[in-house]
Amino acid sequence: MGTWLKSRELADHISETIIRRVNEWKHQGVQPAIATILVQGDPASEYYAKAKEKLARKLGVQYHLMVFPAEISEEQLMEIVEVLNNDKNIHGIMLELPMPKHISVNKLSNTISPVKDVDGISAVNKLACLTGETGLYPATPQSCVRILQHYGYPLQGKHVVLVGRGETVGRPLMQLLLRENATVTVCHSHTTDLAGHIAKADILITAAGRKGLISPAMVHPSLVVIDAGINETEDGITGDVDRDVFEAVEAVTPVPGGVGTLTTVLLFENVLKAMELQHITGGEPHEHI
Amino acid sequence: MGTWLKSRELADHISETIIRRVNEWKHQGVQPAIATILVQGDPASEYYAKAKEKLARKLGVQYHLMVFPAEISEEQLMEIVEVLNNDKNIHGIMLELPMPKHISVNKLSNTISPVKDVDGISAVNKLACLTGETGLYPATPQSCVRILQHYGYPLQGKHVVLVGRGETVGRPLMQLLLRENATVTVCHSHTTDLAGHIAKADILITAAGRKGLISPAMVHPSLVVIDAGINETEDGITGDVDRDVFEAVEAVTPVPGGVGTLTTVLLFENVLKAMELQHITGGEPHEHI
Repeated sequence: MGTWLKSRELADHISETIIRRVNEWKHQGVQPAIATILVQGDPASEYYAKAKEKLARKLGVQYHLMVFPAEISEEQLMEIVEVLNNDKNIHGIMLELPMPKHISVNKLSNTISPVKDVDGISAVNKLACLTGETGLYPATPQSCVRILQHYGYPLQGKHVVLVGRGETVGRPLMQLLLRENATVTVCHSHTTDLAGHIAKADILITAAGRKGLISPAMVHPSLVVIDAGINETEDGITGDVDRDVFEAVEAVTPVPGGVGTLTTVLLFENVLKAMELQHITGGEPHEHI
Repeated sequence: MGTWLKSRELADHISETIIRRVNEWKHQGVQPAIATILVQGDPASEYYAKAKEKLARKLGVQYHLMVFPAEISEEQLMEIVEVLNNDKNIHGIMLELPMPKHISVNKLSNTISPVKDVDGISAVNKLACLTGETGLYPATPQSCVRILQHYGYPLQGKHVVLVGRGETVGRPLMQLLLRENATVTVCHSHTTDLAGHIAKADILITAAGRKGLISPAMVHPSLVVIDAGINETEDGITGDVDRDVFEAVEAVTPVPGGVGTLTTVLLFENVLKAMELQHITGGEPHEHI
């Protein structure tokens, strides 16, 4: 019988710190504010955008949800991002993904000023995450590491099996884990013996987006599991890890209530970091760091 | 008894292609040319710079070795790089490392125009290597992959243990291996059971810079070993792998005569790629890709 590594307590603790810092900004006459760009067409995106709005309100951050019709052009969106880049009252800019196919997310991401790119999706921030320089790192990889730290599982010298090599979670997470001095094995769809790799691991992190990928037969009693998978099913959101795995490991994050819950809060921690970076760069809101 | 994966034959084959392409450029009235910036103080650097000069001559590439006294300032070097960026007759710019401590290699690297950065050390090219976009990738990681391909060891689905996570070899190589669909375990100085990881590997690549790191007791008869280590000893250059490992594995690259030999040639392949990128970007030698 394992332990559920719920993130609610940690998320609440960080939220309190965020609220205190938001209030400090307000006392200085600055209202922290973010803008989310949502192009219509994906129901899940609308759900996530609303969830962020709810948390923003709780934390005292102003939230501008900018909804555009599915036909909006890439050029129009890039112009909107430029306006937000130059708006001193907006401190963070997010794109709600996926975007319609005629929009290049890559191009749009690189239009966002790196010091306002709170999702860490611009080239400058991807590189910062790779090299360890100051920047805004994506929230989901940070969430995985923070949960392990919170529950007293140090990474140094540990063998972490990471399933998934995607741009959003797997690749940046690989860098964070190496920086914590973990030995990292990156598995993916072409890995031939996933169970064999997991058998040797201290920690398993999944970010594959495949429901039921990890079954109880693949794990062992001393394994700690971080489930960063998000799969939309008829019964709601599930991770990559079977619920029954709980019985067969030392500890595992639940979905929902694990990585995702903390990720949303860390996004707002990034907003505060973004504000500091904007401040540091001398109030030039569009200056690239 | 294993096989020595010598790279001479492959290096010669690639050299012939390079000579043919260099001649094509010359027929178009363009003399391919590179510049190496060497700051005095490191005898090994001078040796490497001269070795490149010899190969450049053989390949028909003009080689400008620019030697500066150890006291030269960072600003002066940056100005020299800018001059080279804007010189249409120079197609590749290299820094001979290490530099004296008062020079920021990072800053200087990012001054090099990405389309002339044939060592792939600028931020733009590091990011390209991370994301798989077009760019100039560092030669040593490419050399490791090309030797495996040449000798008929496909990477897809194979388990590669990579020892070393440095900026120059380990990190970019990790990306190349994942792009070839290998399952990659990254080991380093904090890894607790290196032998245990190697025991499960199909391929071992070392880029640790530690003589004698891999002993015969750590390997197995079906293992293929790529030794990208460079260690200067009294008896000349050695890799990270004991010579005796040869007896206990399927195949291993010699040092010298393995990764390094091919790396120098691939550097000149990068020069030709750089020329294409400079051509593609419309003849604006300083335009950032």
